[in-house]
Amino acid sequence: MSLTDLQNQELEDVRSIKNTTRRPTVEALEEILYKPLKALDHGFVRLIDYMGNDAAVVQAARVSYGSGTKKINEDKGLINYLMRRWHTTPFEMCEIKFHIKLPIFIARQWIRHRTANVNEYSGRYSIMDKEFYVPEIKDLAAQSQTNKQGRSTDVLSAEESHRVLEMLKDDARQCYDHYMEMLNLNEETQEILDPNKTGLTRELARMNLTLNYYTQWYWKTDLHNLLHFLRLRADDHAQYEIRVYADIILDIVKKWVPFTYEAFLDYRLNAVNISGKSIAVIKKKLAGENVTAEDVGISKREWQELISLLEIK
Amino acid sequence: MSLTDLQNQELEDVRSIKNTTRRPTVEALEEILYKPLKALDHGFVRLIDYMGNDAAVVQAARVSYGSGTKKINEDKGLINYLMRRWHTTPFEMCEIKFHIKLPIFIARQWIRHRTANVNEYSGRYSIMDKEFYVPEIKDLAAQSQTNKQGRSTDVLSAEESHRVLEMLKDDARQCYDHYMEMLNLNEETQEILDPNKTGLTRELARMNLTLNYYTQWYWKTDLHNLLHFLRLRADDHAQYEIRVYADIILDIVKKWVPFTYEAFLDYRLNAVNISGKSIAVIKKKLAGENVTAEDVGISKREWQELISLLEIK
Amino acid sequence: MSLTDLQNQELEDVRSIKNTTRRPTVEALEEILYKPLKALDHGFVRLIDYMGNDAAVVQAARVSYGSGTKKINEDKGLINYLMRRWHTTPFEMCEIKFHIKLPIFIARQWIRHRTANVNEYSGRYSIMDKEFYVPEIKDLAAQSQTNKQGRSTDVLSAEESHRVLEMLKDDARQCYDHYMEMLNLNEETQEILDPNKTGLTRELARMNLTLNYYTQWYWKTDLHNLLHFLRLRADDHAQYEIRVYADIILDIVKKWVPFTYEAFLDYRLNAVNISGKSIAVIKKKLAGENVTAEDVGISKREWQELISLLEIK
Amino acid sequence: MSLTDLQNQELEDVRSIKNTTRRPTVEALEEILYKPLKALDHGFVRLIDYMGNDAAVVQAARVSYGSGTKKINEDKGLINYLMRRWHTTPFEMCEIKFHIKLPIFIARQWIRHRTANVNEYSGRYSIMDKEFYVPEIKDLAAQSQTNKQGRSTDVLSAEESHRVLEMLKDDARQCYDHYMEMLNLNEETQEILDPNKTGLTRELARMNLTLNYYTQWYWKTDLHNLLHFLRLRADDHAQYEIRVYADIILDIVKKWVPFTYEAFLDYRLNAVNISGKSIAVIKKKLAGENVTAEDVGISKREWQELISLLEIK
Repeated sequence: MSLTDLQNQELEDVRSIKNTTRRPTVEALEEILYKPLKALDHGFVRLIDYMGNDAAVVQAARVSYGSGTKKINEDKGLINYLMRRWHTTPFEMCEIKFHIKLPIFIARQWIRHRTANVNEYSGRYSIMDKEFYVPEIKDLAAQSQTNKQGRSTDVLSAEESHRVLEMLKDDARQCYDHYMEMLNLNEETQEILDPNKTGLTRELARMNLTLNYYTQWYWKTDLHNLLHFLRLRADDHAQYEIRVYADIILDIVKKWVPFTYEAFLDYRLNAVNISGKSIAVIKKKLAGENVTAEDVGISKREWQELISLLEIK
Repeated sequence: MSLTDLQNQELEDVRSIKNTTRRPTVEALEEILYKPLKALDHGFVRLIDYMGNDAAVVQAARVSYGSGTKKINEDKGLINYLMRRWHTTPFEMCEIKFHIKLPIFIARQWIRHRTANVNEYSGRYSIMDKEFYVPEIKDLAAQSQTNKQGRSTDVLSAEESHRVLEMLKDDARQCYDHYMEMLNLNEETQEILDPNKTGLTRELARMNLTLNYYTQWYWKTDLHNLLHFLRLRADDHAQYEIRVYADIILDIVKKWVPFTYEAFLDYRLNAVNISGKSIAVIKKKLAGENVTAEDVGISKREWQELISLLEIK
Repeated sequence: MSLTDLQNQELEDVRSIKNTTRRPTVEALEEILYKPLKALDHGFVRLIDYMGNDAAVVQAARVSYGSGTKKINEDKGLINYLMRRWHTTPFEMCEIKFHIKLPIFIARQWIRHRTANVNEYSGRYSIMDKEFYVPEIKDLAAQSQTNKQGRSTDVLSAEESHRVLEMLKDDARQCYDHYMEMLNLNEETQEILDPNKTGLTRELARMNLTLNYYTQWYWKTDLHNLLHFLRLRADDHAQYEIRVYADIILDIVKKWVPFTYEAFLDYRLNAVNISGKSIAVIKKKLAGENVTAEDVGISKREWQELISLLEIK
Repeated sequence: MSLTDLQNQELEDVRSIKNTTRRPTVEALEEILYKPLKALDHGFVRLIDYMGNDAAVVQAARVSYGSGTKKINEDKGLINYLMRRWHTTPFEMCEIKFHIKLPIFIARQWIRHRTANVNEYSGRYSIMDKEFYVPEIKDLAAQSQTNKQGRSTDVLSAEESHRVLEMLKDDARQCYDHYMEMLNLNEETQEILDPNKTGLTRELARMNLTLNYYTQWYWKTDLHNLLHFLRLRADDHAQYEIRVYADIILDIVKKWVPFTYEAFLDYRLNAVNISGKSIAVIKKKLAGENVTAEDVGISKREWQELISLLEIK
């Protein structure tokens, strides 16, 4: 995440701005505005702009003439109510914009969230930077045997890890060297390498890069869709690498809309969707009755999860 | 559009806020923030919040580390280029939020623009105000004979107008009186009318109101989708009543993003989509050849529009 | 819901079609295709077209070369798994299209579901029919005192009901008579009423109609978004009038995709989203501990709902 | 695009289905249903399902009780009118579903079209196939000097081409070999390579693959959004590799909805959006006046395009 001098200068310039506005501001966000918050080895999350705050949720829910806020306590209660009852539209009234640098294979997961605005750095138009993601040894997990989609808690042996990192680094470097050779450009100076060669078009040469190369984009979404993103991506089932970004953004949400954040934790992130059949199980258990998976006709896997969730012995 | 004392107080309170921010601000928008701009007889458009400006479009297009802006001239050129070539995503990076009061039959057209966020005043939850739209006499157009969907340029006779306004007003008033009677509420005090009656639930009683009753909502959208809305609704083919709102918003866009506004006028609002066949016509005309509608196989209506557009005699 | 002779003829014509296709078909849907299924007093739901079935969900989830189906048991298990874990995209691979006739005040709720395709009958272009919704006496509920948004279980007295229906009918009729008078049209023949008058344009005259007038539209959506619609609108908190439509559609879903339907019932319609704090309550209860609302910091209303859900005494 | 015996068997099975339906069918589409249509070296487009036809557009525009169709001539005229006047919603009433195999760097462009449903083959869950895209020598274009985003019409020299292909092939192969080594799997048998090793989790190992590896997905969208996709991707400014897919799909559209296809060609693909200023130029030219770029204030690039479009000398 080493920025060039020019980029650092741009950052300082933009952070030195002091404007006056009638719009609501959030002190804790102003503090971090434009700063790159480090993610993985070369990535970052930069908050670029925001619209609204907790009061704006309330304001929209009430279709208010003023700021929406009555008493802090009532606002908090209303936000809890809206979150609990899935009245989602008031949360769409806040908007946030980020500049994000992330590996391409993570960008491919991220972009599946369709209700967002995106401008990505273009490999058709510009030369890709020589920056690729290499996991830390502690994150080199084995394939899970029970969950085809996830990682085991086991990590590779020292020797196996070493070999994996070697392959990742060597292949990424070689692919980039060849990318630049195809473009007929010098890697350091970005000047023409061989005046007798033409150089392949950028939109083709880029296909030689590996999926751990970093890309970057501007990404803007509303609070409701951001929370949906976080619910899926700040979750145990999400791939570790995207969770790193989700956790950083979750922390920004906490600073931005503290009431909404709390409601989100209780009614979404820490909440569980319990099926009709599972509710029947809980009722019987509470009534002191005995009940088995077969009795209610739920699958073994679901039964296990329920037992484990409720810490039933 | 007469606000209550309480609403006026809320407006003053919210307009008196002075915050400091690192985010870009737009002087001309700060000026009108929260002020109700009158539309039709009882409606309004109130700017509630905004995110970004012309520079934010440039910033996103360049995936920039700073404000995006280089030289004003280059910014203007880039915005023209983006608009001309339908690179629409950078315009999605600006966001705007309004509080709008409008007749229900116009709200029904407006809501068809799906890529927006909306919180509407709820007739299930709250009592509807006694405010309904009555056109001015000059707007009481006859049905167009050539365009089944539009108005003729003729207006009704004085006598016919008088009768129409009478019916509109009387029916709206009577329906509201009955609405309140169904609710078992006093119109002035909103207190219970007859203690021996129960009162119909609000969600049912509201069905007795006519479609010219005013509703209100918070409406938020991005600049790209706003321009798409304006292209359709600030157009001659749009119903006059929604055009009144579109024109007010168009004027806000002019204050907000002057470069984008100019590009929008030239490449969208004043531009024409000319079909392949019509281009063939223009080419022949320019080459001094004679050409008829039959030659190129275009319909009479389309031919007339082309002739009229190009002022060909 | 009385159709004209012409409409009945069109229906018969379109139902008499027998085509051969390689696409999957659903026997039970072919049976009801194009038939108007009655809703409320004059409305209907007509199934117009459908794409896919349970197997198509499986096929997409497996990115399969064939029909996706292996064994019926595995398909059912996979569909349950997808529903339970909120893997929603495979359910987007089925599509359904309806022709629906419904009161305008219900259409205004319905249209808030944005991820759908809609073509509505145009009151700018065409003359509205004289058909309006009048509730049955048993549905004339009083306003709920505890839930500002809903109906009480009490209905109005016979006398009060009688008066409400009278007002609803009289106002709707009078508004329509005036609508036709504004258009200068004869109600029976739709011919010009008074040759010396011009007649107001349709797009204005329609504003005199009440919100219980029927409109109609073609509405198309994918299975995932349809289920989301049903989850909200086939629910107790939904207004009765939209629930009538939702229940008809739910029954069509049952015929269309029986495995998905069952999973939907268990994991959505009969499921409950239980907050982190409520889960803590359940755990303690199961472990035989005593616990109060204050202990875990949840609101009284939420506590009541939890107690009632779990039938805890 | 060599399918396995199993895949071929699945294809045959699914193509052998003969169902009877009341829904509209399209002969020419039934013919190609499920067949892989080759794209690039290993990719394909497979039509999986479709809903509606030209008549369904008309049916929805008319909110019809029957098939919508009156006379073929009127249908064609209405479709032209809808396309010309940007009445886009009736075209949303047809839906189509494909199974597509395509290089990842093309998938990344494709996915930016957000209004579509997608299920992609998962590299978290499954092992990626050893299939990567290598351009033909004739497609190895040089970078354009005038258009930073595109290809020049020049291709590389034989020698330079040879070297580029060598690098593309060698790097892709080596990256795949290492991918399998990381997974600790034998490339041929997909069995465990070394019983003493653990094997890296799939979701990490995949990052070592290059961007020209093939992925595949189910992709479903409505006709309106498909045409928007084609307008951008079957265009000269689109990257050649995505245009190959767009052209195949355009041909399917021609079979599916011939009237819509013709209207699309004339009013979209062959049409030009002419700015207000450019219209002024055309008017003056037609009136025999002289006019320069400076007179109307349009940029040199835009002026050149206008001159070239109208073949003005």
